[in-house]
Amino acid sequence: MTGEVVALPNIQPDRLQFIKTETPKAPPPSQSLMFGHTFTDHMLTIPWSSLEGWGVPKIEPYGPLSLEPSCTVLHYAQTIFEGMKAYRDEHGKVTLFRPDMNMKRMNTSAARIALPTFNGDAFLDLIKKLIHAERDWIPREPGHSLYIRPTMIGTQKFIGVAPPSEALLFVICSPVGPYYPDGFKPIALYGTTEYIRAAPGGTGAYKLGVNYAPGVMPQKQAAKMGYAQNLWLHGPEHYLTEVGTMNMFVVLKKNDGTIELVTPPLDGMILPGVTRDSVLALARGHASGSYKISDLPDKLVVSERPITMVEIQEAEASGALVELFGSGTAAVISPVNRIGYLGKDIHIPTGEDGMGPVSRPIWTELVGRQMGTIPSDWSVPVTA
Amino acid sequence: MTGEVVALPNIQPDRLQFIKTETPKAPPPSQSLMFGHTFTDHMLTIPWSSLEGWGVPKIEPYGPLSLEPSCTVLHYAQTIFEGMKAYRDEHGKVTLFRPDMNMKRMNTSAARIALPTFNGDAFLDLIKKLIHAERDWIPREPGHSLYIRPTMIGTQKFIGVAPPSEALLFVICSPVGPYYPDGFKPIALYGTTEYIRAAPGGTGAYKLGVNYAPGVMPQKQAAKMGYAQNLWLHGPEHYLTEVGTMNMFVVLKKNDGTIELVTPPLDGMILPGVTRDSVLALARGHASGSYKISDLPDKLVVSERPITMVEIQEAEASGALVELFGSGTAAVISPVNRIGYLGKDIHIPTGEDGMGPVSRPIWTELVGRQMGTIPSDWSVPVTA
Repeated sequence: MTGEVVALPNIQPDRLQFIKTETPKAPPPSQSLMFGHTFTDHMLTIPWSSLEGWGVPKIEPYGPLSLEPSCTVLHYAQTIFEGMKAYRDEHGKVTLFRPDMNMKRMNTSAARIALPTFNGDAFLDLIKKLIHAERDWIPREPGHSLYIRPTMIGTQKFIGVAPPSEALLFVICSPVGPYYPDGFKPIALYGTTEYIRAAPGGTGAYKLGVNYAPGVMPQKQAAKMGYAQNLWLHGPEHYLTEVGTMNMFVVLKKNDGTIELVTPPLDGMILPGVTRDSVLALARGHASGSYKISDLPDKLVVSERPITMVEIQEAEASGALVELFGSGTAAVISPVNRIGYLGKDIHIPTGEDGMGPVSRPIWTELVGRQMGTIPSDWSVPVTA
Repeated sequence: MTGEVVALPNIQPDRLQFIKTETPKAPPPSQSLMFGHTFTDHMLTIPWSSLEGWGVPKIEPYGPLSLEPSCTVLHYAQTIFEGMKAYRDEHGKVTLFRPDMNMKRMNTSAARIALPTFNGDAFLDLIKKLIHAERDWIPREPGHSLYIRPTMIGTQKFIGVAPPSEALLFVICSPVGPYYPDGFKPIALYGTTEYIRAAPGGTGAYKLGVNYAPGVMPQKQAAKMGYAQNLWLHGPEHYLTEVGTMNMFVVLKKNDGTIELVTPPLDGMILPGVTRDSVLALARGHASGSYKISDLPDKLVVSERPITMVEIQEAEASGALVELFGSGTAAVISPVNRIGYLGKDIHIPTGEDGMGPVSRPIWTELVGRQMGTIPSDWSVPVTA
């Protein structure tokens, strides 16, 4: 023992073991797909321990994990995840959308709850190998994709509240159809004053499992009152923060005709969403003139700033409220037509197609880039 | 189908299946026990589904759970737990301490994250059967016990954020020694202003896994600075809320010599701890004269009220700060001798034995009642 610090192994793609399933399934018909119900033939697993670092990556048959009943994730919620989509175009070319953003965020999430961090490029390399192996599971129909779910859990076998000494990183894949198969259906939100999603000093800015379980019961209560999702508010001023499990945007019309696209700033309570970032980048490119998007209003300003329910109410009253929508990997854009707030409903305009003058052209551009019909460096090819 | 509502089965102790291990282990020597590292030969499992209600309870060999990689708990932290202790006296009599409180709280926790509720008496009946089966694992040495960990996880096999359609309730048991084997060691706390444990509208009042993972990294940071645990503060006023994973108490001396025992009120951010409730009940019994505890100050008032760091600082300056301690099932009472706060250390008196004039007699009474040397209806016998 010399006392020198030896760096533990990071994720090593060249050690990959591929154990092919002996009982491959046939992918179900694309029309029958329900979000997150069907999984492909294989999964990627990479174990970690504090003594040995990242171990041998395996692509192996999809199947149950064997977890000790004492393991950390089952008691103290030591879990983080990501959501990504792989697309296949008409020529069979498979792509991911901005996967570097997911790798970066997953490392930020890991650090927040004392799970191990990792080399994002190496992990992405292995994810691509898994997707390539499962490429026949990617539906080709428009709006369809393969949903990729990287997850990391604490697997330490004792029930102390401490940084886990063991963890498991795994990836499962689920073929999914479009979120709105029959065109956009605007949803109603319940402006929630009884429960919170996040608070300053908490974990709202990280993609942790702990941000999700507490939202299920408030969502059930909202649904009972006829609202599809919670609009999460913050503080006595009722700042708008997020919508269900999505980021959110408000579109306002100013007196001089300028259109303002507003989203809450990344103040520690807001998840730095990949779709959120993409919407902002596209809108800013258009506003600056560097990349014009057809049909998007010419006089556009983009604001990351706090916005309160009072401002929404005043905008409704003055006719300045143009639209309001959620953004996320699963639904891409989710238009909102109503907010229940303190016993009254705020009504939000939507077009005949369910969308609005800002969300429509941005959605078209975004989906074009995701599906590869509009070339961009956000689309990253998956090859063997 | 007549449309009538059929009540689904609740937990049914008479359906218990007992599958004995074929490879029983020998309990390790009591001196070698580390908290939560060693588990007994058997565990209790009870499955639940939204279609069939609570299924067949099993006491079966302790071993890994087989969980689908898509299951809810691994992604969205759908987990709740309890901590209880079983004691065995010198005559071999086995008891639990106020287990009804744990059953009640576990149901409250379940409802908060849309997990199924259950008949607490029926579940407790089964827990007692498990403890009886494992009675030889309960160390007899003073301060030793069998730590019981009831846990419920969402096991639904798809990755939608929704109330789980399947769940698993399980109980594992771990023999444990005293938290402070060599006498009380007062700990230093870091008055944490960067991170929170709970916020209004959140989940701090429930025993959910989600309250624990986010505290691990702040605890690591506090440890690096030389503090054992976080003192969780709330709001710009820096109200004291909890200590690490314990409730907390402050003892103050008033001008007229009256001793005030203060703990933060159950305002939605504070876990309703069984030890917290027991400390309050004992102190109130003494203060009212209904049940006198020897050596506890005669002029005692008990306050559930908010208390700020400024009040602690002022009490230190004026000499009114008598003691400060945490309370919980694992450590029972955990004295504090120092708080790092905004760059300065607040010093808190402790006696030569590490305790103070209120914590010492209350701890003696509490442990006496737990171990059965002081008879009380808080001690509940476990029989076959």
